[in-house]
Amino acid sequence: MDRSRLDDALSTTGTDGYLIDASQEDANQFYLSGFTGPDPFLTLAADGETSMLVSGLEYGRARSEATVDVVKRHADYDYEYGGREERYDMYAAFMRGKGVESVSMPPRGPVGTADALRERGIDVRVDHEDRLTEVRAVKTDEEIAAIREAQRANEAAMRAAEELLREADVADGHDGDLVEETLLYDGTPLTSERVKSTIEIELLNHGCALDETIVAGGEQAADPHDRGSGPLRANEAIIIDIFPRSKTTRYNADMTRTFCVGEPSDELRERYAITEEALSAALEAIEPGATGEDVHAAACSVYEDAGYPTFRTDPKTEVGFIHSTGHGIGLDVHELPRLSSGGGSLEPGHVVTVEPGLYDPAVGGVRIEDLVVVTADGYENLTEYPIEFVID
Amino acid sequence: MDRSRLDDALSTTGTDGYLIDASQEDANQFYLSGFTGPDPFLTLAADGETSMLVSGLEYGRARSEATVDVVKRHADYDYEYGGREERYDMYAAFMRGKGVESVSMPPRGPVGTADALRERGIDVRVDHEDRLTEVRAVKTDEEIAAIREAQRANEAAMRAAEELLREADVADGHDGDLVEETLLYDGTPLTSERVKSTIEIELLNHGCALDETIVAGGEQAADPHDRGSGPLRANEAIIIDIFPRSKTTRYNADMTRTFCVGEPSDELRERYAITEEALSAALEAIEPGATGEDVHAAACSVYEDAGYPTFRTDPKTEVGFIHSTGHGIGLDVHELPRLSSGGGSLEPGHVVTVEPGLYDPAVGGVRIEDLVVVTADGYENLTEYPIEFVID
Repeated sequence: MDRSRLDDALSTTGTDGYLIDASQEDANQFYLSGFTGPDPFLTLAADGETSMLVSGLEYGRARSEATVDVVKRHADYDYEYGGREERYDMYAAFMRGKGVESVSMPPRGPVGTADALRERGIDVRVDHEDRLTEVRAVKTDEEIAAIREAQRANEAAMRAAEELLREADVADGHDGDLVEETLLYDGTPLTSERVKSTIEIELLNHGCALDETIVAGGEQAADPHDRGSGPLRANEAIIIDIFPRSKTTRYNADMTRTFCVGEPSDELRERYAITEEALSAALEAIEPGATGEDVHAAACSVYEDAGYPTFRTDPKTEVGFIHSTGHGIGLDVHELPRLSSGGGSLEPGHVVTVEPGLYDPAVGGVRIEDLVVVTADGYENLTEYPIEFVID
Repeated sequence: MDRSRLDDALSTTGTDGYLIDASQEDANQFYLSGFTGPDPFLTLAADGETSMLVSGLEYGRARSEATVDVVKRHADYDYEYGGREERYDMYAAFMRGKGVESVSMPPRGPVGTADALRERGIDVRVDHEDRLTEVRAVKTDEEIAAIREAQRANEAAMRAAEELLREADVADGHDGDLVEETLLYDGTPLTSERVKSTIEIELLNHGCALDETIVAGGEQAADPHDRGSGPLRANEAIIIDIFPRSKTTRYNADMTRTFCVGEPSDELRERYAITEEALSAALEAIEPGATGEDVHAAACSVYEDAGYPTFRTDPKTEVGFIHSTGHGIGLDVHELPRLSSGGGSLEPGHVVTVEPGLYDPAVGGVRIEDLVVVTADGYENLTEYPIEFVID
């Protein structure tokens, strides 16, 4: 955490403090507290000091693990497990104990806590600027190293998946009931589930936790968020999109490759080539001062010039380039900045995915995604995995 | 989802509708929408009908996968990705389109959305009763079956872990630099990390996603939320607490066993025996009409009668029985009802963990946890795993 940037940002809220009420799953909470608690707890930044309020169960671990200045526990306020109003009374007492009469909460902070504090005379305001999220978007060298390390694990998983595809046989119509062109591994159909399982175990072995993984072929790949299921086939485009989180650092990585075992159609080859072009154009647009909208525009222009629809030319289109060009990544898989319409200025230390793609149920889907960090004069690509479509 | 209980509960809010603004990670959201979207989206229950508002990216999948009555997309409101105020304008228009002028949100709904809707003339009230969570607490037969299935996967993982302990050798002082009593597997120290990795892979093979797992021995086990790390030793108590989520159903299971390889001290044996007693007493107290507080009291009394401190006798104690007796489980690992001070009435269909434990850094930790469903006349234990302390 970059404490001086944090203090600077929070000093502009116009309130006495900044309050997070969330569990470890909330990236702001982990960023501010350094603590992994499975149930919601409070962290308050006020007057250049951070304070936490946790249950007795978490107290010992909080004192040794949290990165805050002060740890308070429920018993300090004579609160035992139970009553709702008493709990909010305790929250208000905790804040007043820090001299806080007005406080900011991020937009996704809980309304129950906000309203209860208001009823107790504390002026709670929504930080619509989402300052903590803005602070988190700019990574320190240590955070960049954590993301880079997660991307190495990601590449090992992608390699294991590609290897499965490479070793697959293709059913040729003489394999009993199998649909022709079905990929076979050890004599049975190679499914999305089988590839995902290989990816997951490889990630585990590299210390990464498993969220969802996308392994989608053919028509399934034409829906960017379809996770994919069932047998994979030769000569179709297979999208593999992996976004693991390091269990040690809690930072995420993200990468997508599209493969074709055998012989893609001319249509698929053209779509892959134009997507590579869109990726290059977007990457070239990345530098401090450029906006996320500029980068998105660079990718959209490549597609639009080639005659494919985008959300810019048709907001209701269900084919073409139907998502944003990328997103920030860190403790959250999706965070600031956005490479999309309305996306703001890029700064050194922003880590973003760049992931143009083309989708059409009649053809399939193609997406290529790298992960880069914005530098003083451009970007550095944190992805080392080759970009190759056809697996012979 | 039990639609009639849902409609009954939501009809008592005194508002026109019930709004969830959250991603798939929010259990209320998945319960109400049946949809897995990685970014926050809106689901509104009003007038016996559920409606969703999603981005264009999710629209196709939402129409085929979500269990709601109506799916709207951003383009229906001429909104493209970007502006914050325009987004809230769209939210207000979506709600007005359903005739909603007043709306309830759960306590953990986002304050940014609540305040923005208020600024737009919609009366947003916090549902402090948390009605949707109360509805979710009572499981249908289908939900119970999903939890039971996840517990079977959990038991397979526990078996794999116990097997590792059973096959371990014990360093005897002739093994070079190894601390005496260190457990050895294939000649190297058996670590918490190694056992967790075995658990995780077994769960993966059973279609379960991995959250954290606790494998903590000796002094580490004396902190109930310490996940454990480093070499495990003979003659110490080793707590293994596994809470997997089914990737298919998204329902969780939960179970804890405590093992000792070799010869536990008399002190540890006594603590294990009294914890088995506390477990039995708590289970016996479970029936419709009993409260979570009653069940917790039953466990506490066993410990207190044996001279161990609890939060009832000393709210600041850091040794003894220092957590609640259990919690509801379902789409969330921790949900209603609570088996703790202030815990409310039990109803048939409630699924709860029962997990008494004793902790002391000087002795170690012991916890035994089963998962049960409240039935018409008592409870059914969803856990089949044996309760045995010593591994010879």
